[in-house]
Amino acid sequence: MEVNEMAGEECKAFLERASVGRLGCSYENQPYVAPIHFAYENGYLFGFSTFGQKVKWMRANPKVCVQTDEIENRSEWISVIIYAEYEELPEPQYAAERKHASSLLAKRYHWWLNALGYRQMRVGDQLIEPLFFRIRIQSMSGLRATGEK
Amino acid sequence: MEVNEMAGEECKAFLERASVGRLGCSYENQPYVAPIHFAYENGYLFGFSTFGQKVKWMRANPKVCVQTDEIENRSEWISVIIYAEYEELPEPQYAAERKHASSLLAKRYHWWLNALGYRQMRVGDQLIEPLFFRIRIQSMSGLRATGEK
Repeated sequence: MEVNEMAGEECKAFLERASVGRLGCSYENQPYVAPIHFAYENGYLFGFSTFGQKVKWMRANPKVCVQTDEIENRSEWISVIIYAEYEELPEPQYAAERKHASSLLAKRYHWWLNALGYRQMRVGDQLIEPLFFRIRIQSMSGLRATGEK
Repeated sequence: MEVNEMAGEECKAFLERASVGRLGCSYENQPYVAPIHFAYENGYLFGFSTFGQKVKWMRANPKVCVQTDEIENRSEWISVIIYAEYEELPEPQYAAERKHASSLLAKRYHWWLNALGYRQMRVGDQLIEPLFFRIRIQSMSGLRATGEK
């Protein structure tokens, strides 16, 4: 197995086809990791969520780390790690960005409406609006392992 | 899709068959996430690594979070999140624990010696010893999604 660092362009090409990552955030130096779905575009990961611990913590401390990978087998894999900053996209200030995020994500995550539907049911009458955000990439690095030779 | 919280016993049963997780650590409130291989036993995740950023940060701040999941498809998945504390197992103080960790991990990760071999090559003459650690689970919670009805 050979492990090589990926160039910035390779990382970007990978992010364009990736869709699931693990988002790390931290509050008072206690880390928290949760899976997220995202869509990459021009230096940003766009995502959505319902309100919960992750969002609460990122509002308090916007520094985040996203790790995403593609594992073919033990000796063929890619792993990209991103340092970034959380930016929420509330209305009305971010109406345009929110619409853009929503349309980018809708292409891939229409099915997620089911999950949101479930959350809505759990809180009875109260309607939970999806919360859109973007993650501004500050730096990233990637490793690629290639098979036995 | 229905999403339900998992009981403690269900989380444990899942950890017993899981082997890959994402470890979140944090230094000066900057989170970092990296994939890890682990073996669960009696309230601990045992793991190994070579020395790098992850270990450096966990020595400075032992609070960690591990997320691990099993995704069958969009509506059938399990995700477990663990809050825990990092404990390194250096010799000679932890010789017994280290041996135990090593034998638990060897059952699953013999192949990883290849990767260590690669790291050894990269630093020339210097031999990199695998570093063993355990993660003491303080609390955990899990969610299980079950398919469309």
